[in-house]
Amino acid sequence: MVLTDVIGFVAGICVTISIVPQILKVWKRKKVKDISLKTFSIITFGIALWVVYGILKKDLPIIITNSISLVLNGIMIFFILHFEKE
Amino acid sequence: MVLTDVIGFVAGICVTISIVPQILKVWKRKKVKDISLKTFSIITFGIALWVVYGILKKDLPIIITNSISLVLNGIMIFFILHFEKE
Repeated sequence: MVLTDVIGFVAGICVTISIVPQILKVWKRKKVKDISLKTFSIITFGIALWVVYGILKKDLPIIITNSISLVLNGIMIFFILHFEKE
Repeated sequence: MVLTDVIGFVAGICVTISIVPQILKVWKRKKVKDISLKTFSIITFGIALWVVYGILKKDLPIIITNSISLVLNGIMIFFILHFEKE
């Protein structure tokens, strides 16, 4: 694996898993007032487009990383809608 | 421009600008308690790596979109550190 590929791989993992601490924080505190639903809606839409892009290009890394991100950001949207009422 | 490129272009713009509503929300409310500093630190590190990746690959779209994201996420980290004390 070339250095550039390693950097791209680590970058992809960081960006993909970065949402996990936020999900855990919301799960613990059950509070979402400071969090923007618009932000998570736009990013989830963008990530869904990246999945479509990856499928059209038959690019497995793009499909896999963005599918994981799609699920994680979907969880965030569910949490925001769910805990917003509380 | 091929349909696939349009999808990739729109996906990149969505993901890049998605953080703006969150920045505006924090700027208005001056509250960041529900927001995870870990999340923004990891994603900013990952985006910085994407900029390095783009430079090594001489890929202008990757460099430009991720440089913008780097600045926007840097603003978020500054806001979290700044308003956390309040």
